[in-house]
Amino acid sequence: MKREGSPKVPTRSKPSRRGSWIGFAGLAWELLIVGSLALNLVAIALFASPSLDEGGAPPLDFDAEASVAASAALVGSKHSEGRDEEISVSSTSGSRPTSKDAVINLDHGDPTMYESFWKRMGHRGDITIAGWQGISYFSDVTNLCWFLEPEFDHEIRRLHRLVGNAVADGHFVVVGTGSTQLFQAALYALSPPDTPHPLSVVSAAPYYSSYPAVTDYLRSGLYRWAGDASAFKGNIYIELVCSPNNPDGSIREAVLKSENGTIIHDLAYYWPQYTPITHAEDHDIMLFTVSKTTGHAGSRLGWALVKDKDVAKRMIKFVELNSIGVSKDSQFRAAKILKAISDGYELPNPKNKYKLFDFGHLLMSVRWKRLREAVKVSGIFSLPEFQSSYCTFTGKRTETYPAFAWLKCEKEGVEDCENFLRSHKILSRNGKHFGAARKFVRISMLERDETFELFIERLSSLT
Amino acid sequence: MKREGSPKVPTRSKPSRRGSWIGFAGLAWELLIVGSLALNLVAIALFASPSLDEGGAPPLDFDAEASVAASAALVGSKHSEGRDEEISVSSTSGSRPTSKDAVINLDHGDPTMYESFWKRMGHRGDITIAGWQGISYFSDVTNLCWFLEPEFDHEIRRLHRLVGNAVADGHFVVVGTGSTQLFQAALYALSPPDTPHPLSVVSAAPYYSSYPAVTDYLRSGLYRWAGDASAFKGNIYIELVCSPNNPDGSIREAVLKSENGTIIHDLAYYWPQYTPITHAEDHDIMLFTVSKTTGHAGSRLGWALVKDKDVAKRMIKFVELNSIGVSKDSQFRAAKILKAISDGYELPNPKNKYKLFDFGHLLMSVRWKRLREAVKVSGIFSLPEFQSSYCTFTGKRTETYPAFAWLKCEKEGVEDCENFLRSHKILSRNGKHFGAARKFVRISMLERDETFELFIERLSSLT
Repeated sequence: MKREGSPKVPTRSKPSRRGSWIGFAGLAWELLIVGSLALNLVAIALFASPSLDEGGAPPLDFDAEASVAASAALVGSKHSEGRDEEISVSSTSGSRPTSKDAVINLDHGDPTMYESFWKRMGHRGDITIAGWQGISYFSDVTNLCWFLEPEFDHEIRRLHRLVGNAVADGHFVVVGTGSTQLFQAALYALSPPDTPHPLSVVSAAPYYSSYPAVTDYLRSGLYRWAGDASAFKGNIYIELVCSPNNPDGSIREAVLKSENGTIIHDLAYYWPQYTPITHAEDHDIMLFTVSKTTGHAGSRLGWALVKDKDVAKRMIKFVELNSIGVSKDSQFRAAKILKAISDGYELPNPKNKYKLFDFGHLLMSVRWKRLREAVKVSGIFSLPEFQSSYCTFTGKRTETYPAFAWLKCEKEGVEDCENFLRSHKILSRNGKHFGAARKFVRISMLERDETFELFIERLSSLT
Repeated sequence: MKREGSPKVPTRSKPSRRGSWIGFAGLAWELLIVGSLALNLVAIALFASPSLDEGGAPPLDFDAEASVAASAALVGSKHSEGRDEEISVSSTSGSRPTSKDAVINLDHGDPTMYESFWKRMGHRGDITIAGWQGISYFSDVTNLCWFLEPEFDHEIRRLHRLVGNAVADGHFVVVGTGSTQLFQAALYALSPPDTPHPLSVVSAAPYYSSYPAVTDYLRSGLYRWAGDASAFKGNIYIELVCSPNNPDGSIREAVLKSENGTIIHDLAYYWPQYTPITHAEDHDIMLFTVSKTTGHAGSRLGWALVKDKDVAKRMIKFVELNSIGVSKDSQFRAAKILKAISDGYELPNPKNKYKLFDFGHLLMSVRWKRLREAVKVSGIFSLPEFQSSYCTFTGKRTETYPAFAWLKCEKEGVEDCENFLRSHKILSRNGKHFGAARKFVRISMLERDETFELFIERLSSLT
């Protein structure tokens, strides 16, 4: 259905699905990629057959952006500031590979695999914002978090009730510019303002590679990165518990047990597509992000569930000082996106068969199956193993399919897995950034189908 | 024109224009307010007569939100953490007064006066974002600022060329979550990472009240607030130059002249509605914000024009560490909003007579005229005076109409103007927060018509 009179976000012009492709890499490769994608497509088709009349875009649309980016694709980047930098943006970041031997960038956890789901959703995920809406700084001054849009608050609580992964009742919702901002807000909130020495911030290795850099970049007098929680000696600290853990997918609890210590639970990946939901978490500070829930990383939106009012107030004060609140546009949109997800489960409708967590879980299961097969074929890598558990959300025993693969090179003579993969034009994140050995790398499992399939093909060929 | 199939941002239900009003404050007051608004309405009508077929909402629409907020309105707030807090959010923040003796909150620079312009613009400022758009973290990896949307970049440069207020050519555009984030990014970029002592950050008093708090809240080892630039002794520093200045509207240059010092130019208010555009500024770091340009404070979006590549890179690194980029949704929308403004001037069209800067300038001129009259009638206040200048944008000699009024109490026995106004239910920001005397307050001139008119009426009555 075409809509008149509603201006759309400008999109870059799209060539035909062949166009630049054939000239660039040849028909043979195009056919190969389409062939290798069959498994995913079949899996997806099982529960979500797009109807033509719903305006869903074709699932494997190639656009001009990819061709432009790819034509400049190089290993490394003109913008890269060296591999010790936390995030190394290269000319291949966020784009599709455009030939069989292209660089495959799996360094970031860019959740572009969700694009195809939202294309299938048709207009259910669309939003129109009128020019005059959302002008004021204030969203709801009756809420402690005065910059939280009421609809977003409502849909967050509804989604947690639906999924059963966290207790939102009795918690304040604090919205942030991604969970990255909320992580800093929580550090600020938990550090005494007049502390003579910075509070120690720790996390059990392997820990999320951003924690050290984000804790230390301003050399704050309030808090300071103190490394692996398992090696920490002391009673006063902030322990970061990421569960399921980034990078290795493990389910975690705090390793330190002091009464004077505090804990931030980063639950970005505690959603049914990645792991069985075994119970509703009910901690003092729980962080979530839209990026890993729905795929909308570009919206830069996260939320915290916070039990203590004074801690919530200090987190809100941080967001106020750091950015005077959080984009209303992102909140309007995310409210719509979360609503579409919950409606998919709660409003039975033969036309409304699009279920995000089902899509995500099935796609992740196919990907992990293919990854484990490729690792077996290659014979030079290993992966963590996970036990299945009963998932209260699906009502079934389900497997764990983490958003990242924590891959270890077992090949003799290879000490640095990232370098080894880089020599085969696969970009990954070195284990050393996670407080682990360089034999490990973190690989994103959330890229677009064609990127993932090319990765599997290349990994299988390594010996 | 009604559009089918394009879901809108949920809006709170609107009662009829009387409804709760009459019950609450009586018809008499409603008539008074409507009467006092006549001057503004006439002024606006001079150049922007809304056509019914364009879907523009009525200009003085009262909605349920205001009634709800107002029914709880109190002087002070349950959320206020005391007047020394930088931003004191109260139950009256962002809402309209609902009776003649209601609290009038002019503490914030909430630019809600722009709502009526965007309502008149009809669908020209609307945007529809499809569910699958803007998923990736990355906007354009060929740009140094990889999270900057190309359309937003384009419209920023176009607007600066149109207005002639700043040289964008030869500058990098760095996008931020409001200019507040970019201010911190600039501090980070200008501070040597290995500095043994925090760099001194100064600004000539009266300075923007947020500068000290935003500089110091994390007790950074990189930089530290050092107060009034005019009193600073030393050669190494970052000087903040806000021009036109918040709070007093004065045109400023750096007061310190050391070769080893650096300067951040905060040009948030250097737009034709507030001040004559006398020349295009061409400094190393220039900060702008969508809030004060178009009114969209809720979008939390700003931009910096940065001359030096390494400084730009470090600012980008800050935004990466602070929030992994900036909301794409806000950027999509702001690109559309800026485009609508530039189109209003550059695409002559009898139906397209809506010109933001003309609207803003005319409305501000009416408001300043009324404010000066009220001050004269009252006899206990004074205001700064400004010289007119030739404005290269309008091609006319124009006056200065700052976004804030820097009001001084001249009444004998009144040492604290904020307290005095508060006793008359007018909330303002105390001069002490700006490094000035308590006889001064900052008053927002950007609130909605009815708030401003009630303020003028009450101010005139004070003796």
